[in-house]
Amino acid sequence: MPHSLLKIGLAGFGNVGAGVYKNLEKNRDILRERTGRDLVVHRVAIRDPKKKRNVSLPKENVTTDLWDIVEDDEIELVVELIGGVDRAFEFVEAALKSGKSVVTGNKALLAERGRELFEVARENNAHIYYEAAVAGGIPIIKTVQESLIGNHIQSVAGIINGTCNYILTRMNEAGLQYEDALQEAQDLGYAEADPTLDVNGWDAAHKAVILASLSYGCWVPCDEIYVEGIEKVTKPDIDFADELGYIIKLLAIIKLHEKDRAIEVRVQPSLVPKGHILASVRGVFNAILVTGDVVGETLFYGSGAGQDPTSSSVIGDIADAAARCNNPGGLGFVTHDLYGKPLKVEDSVSKYYLRVQVVDTPGSLARIATILGDHNIGILSVIQPEDHDEETAPVALTLHFAPFGRMLEAKEKIARLDCVSDEPVLMRVEAI
Amino acid sequence: MPHSLLKIGLAGFGNVGAGVYKNLEKNRDILRERTGRDLVVHRVAIRDPKKKRNVSLPKENVTTDLWDIVEDDEIELVVELIGGVDRAFEFVEAALKSGKSVVTGNKALLAERGRELFEVARENNAHIYYEAAVAGGIPIIKTVQESLIGNHIQSVAGIINGTCNYILTRMNEAGLQYEDALQEAQDLGYAEADPTLDVNGWDAAHKAVILASLSYGCWVPCDEIYVEGIEKVTKPDIDFADELGYIIKLLAIIKLHEKDRAIEVRVQPSLVPKGHILASVRGVFNAILVTGDVVGETLFYGSGAGQDPTSSSVIGDIADAAARCNNPGGLGFVTHDLYGKPLKVEDSVSKYYLRVQVVDTPGSLARIATILGDHNIGILSVIQPEDHDEETAPVALTLHFAPFGRMLEAKEKIARLDCVSDEPVLMRVEAI
Repeated sequence: MPHSLLKIGLAGFGNVGAGVYKNLEKNRDILRERTGRDLVVHRVAIRDPKKKRNVSLPKENVTTDLWDIVEDDEIELVVELIGGVDRAFEFVEAALKSGKSVVTGNKALLAERGRELFEVARENNAHIYYEAAVAGGIPIIKTVQESLIGNHIQSVAGIINGTCNYILTRMNEAGLQYEDALQEAQDLGYAEADPTLDVNGWDAAHKAVILASLSYGCWVPCDEIYVEGIEKVTKPDIDFADELGYIIKLLAIIKLHEKDRAIEVRVQPSLVPKGHILASVRGVFNAILVTGDVVGETLFYGSGAGQDPTSSSVIGDIADAAARCNNPGGLGFVTHDLYGKPLKVEDSVSKYYLRVQVVDTPGSLARIATILGDHNIGILSVIQPEDHDEETAPVALTLHFAPFGRMLEAKEKIARLDCVSDEPVLMRVEAI
Repeated sequence: MPHSLLKIGLAGFGNVGAGVYKNLEKNRDILRERTGRDLVVHRVAIRDPKKKRNVSLPKENVTTDLWDIVEDDEIELVVELIGGVDRAFEFVEAALKSGKSVVTGNKALLAERGRELFEVARENNAHIYYEAAVAGGIPIIKTVQESLIGNHIQSVAGIINGTCNYILTRMNEAGLQYEDALQEAQDLGYAEADPTLDVNGWDAAHKAVILASLSYGCWVPCDEIYVEGIEKVTKPDIDFADELGYIIKLLAIIKLHEKDRAIEVRVQPSLVPKGHILASVRGVFNAILVTGDVVGETLFYGSGAGQDPTSSSVIGDIADAAARCNNPGGLGFVTHDLYGKPLKVEDSVSKYYLRVQVVDTPGSLARIATILGDHNIGILSVIQPEDHDEETAPVALTLHFAPFGRMLEAKEKIARLDCVSDEPVLMRVEAI
């Protein structure tokens, strides 16, 4: 049978953009058979035509003006891979208003301005597909949106930043210091020249905001979630965690509080039990543990970044756009009022790991324990190494369930004790 | 906005059927918001109206005649959960011919007669949805069919029978004998009163046939694949595997041979390296490792059976049916000629584990090694316990890559040696 053309406008020809183009060409036959359509990149908007690329483009398809794509009536579908927020917003908004559906891998754009864009999409009967925006090649968006549609999502716990997971894996397994592990990640191309957005937790946070918003049908504002990066994770904490039977992971946690329907969303370095399946996720791999009231525990594992894995998700979205009629239900982003507001992080409860550097006097631990007791926080375990040369010694404690706010108060009081030398280190112990 | 009704005919009210009904009711609000439609079970066909059930049904919706569902013009979508092949075939065929789309969890039906049914569906512009037929709550069908649509599937390695995985887990971790582990699985309701189809490998084989057919766009005949169950797995082999650094799992292997495009499909107890992520899949859980040429390695983990997990997949399919226009591409089952025929199992290559019970004479190992040498099969390791009371002693060998056919010949010759007392045990060592 003859195959109808789907003409695609590709905006951005960086790492992922080039991968999408390359793999669409490579697997064109199989895509034609499976979708019944010919998926053709009709136009590519690039920033710098002179830049050397290992994927070559036919000259006649190339433009340096994004608006050539918006204004090209032959183009049915736009793929946005230029990154950034403001310019990408203008471009995607214009494409949607011209009735074109959009595939994007831009997590910052959706986390910060998705609410507006999905409204524009609905008004113009267009779709936004964004599988590539979360966890690279792992089809987590389609899974939550479609496969688990019959579930109340009870919780999502994800390792969704490959750079951080690589750094923490190397600190844990090779005993590297944070700086050396980061340098290694940069040398291997796993971390950007400027790794800020990865290591400060905001790349993971943007993905968490998208997952939380999708799971609960309401836009979770970026400024209402709590985000900590891995910059302050040190070798001693990795070692204490190991001694206590845990591995430190940067976890994005999304949790529904059944009683008031509040939504907990946070990104923090957290202690995970060694036996837990998330503890076995090493290097740049990502994994997302989704618990639904019907399906129970499910886990999705794969490459969370990289040219090819991410293009796999972009191409999946392109095929969806090619195969589907516009149906507002199920497939798109549907907002409703069945769930509550984001939970204040002060009210989020977990166990904790607390490391305090104390002047080595017999009374130190007692004074710390007293403060914890005053705040009604139970102590689960204490480790205090005997052999140390310095005048100060570390004390590592694991603490029972308590609200984060009360825990922070106790930590501040402990920090002000004259027997405490440095700022105490506080991390969650996740009972996932 | 008003929500249009989707009237569903539910055939079969056993464990999964009741779960689908229960969970559709339970999460009706969220499903209405997400799909924009009201998913209502309009009629339920049950076998025995007198049977006691913990899910109650309104009398007026119940029938004991399947054809009441086929002939009810108000019913848009049929859910087939009666099981079996012949009667289910007649029913699904009739439903499709009446223009109704069908959701089924019937793996035997699809593996044995899917080719015919998908043809009938295409002729009648209807759809067959079958997420629940493979790996319970794990959305592996949608993932392969849609999310990974841009990939050549290079291989699939799955633990897709929870009963067998539970039995093997208990044999490995609690040291149980096969019979005791099976009994325990039955007592816990993880195994049927008649566990034949589970332990002989055919339940996994039906799922493997569906996955292979979907991945390669051609119907793989059940009689062209190689299937071994776990009935012959013994404690000594579990222990030798452990000593060698492996865990025994019942694996479904689907592999594309790039050179001739042949498709390898087999189900066998196999040795998996302890460090491998599949080795960490315990108890009744399932996991499927899919490797694509674009996405790389991905793993999908969850409950492979059970009332609720399986209904999660059925409800996902119902929502797909509610949300989608009929589009032959991508969403359905598309056959094409881009891949070759199933590979003869004799030609499938792997490493091996071979245990031989020998009369304890010095020359025994030499004679076994000679036969292996004659068949050009290299020996990787040999274990021969020193302390044993009987006149015969076990020898456990791991062997280098060789075609299965040649390996079987060597095994037969070894079995005929007069220094060999029992039938030798042969298993694959999977280099996944």
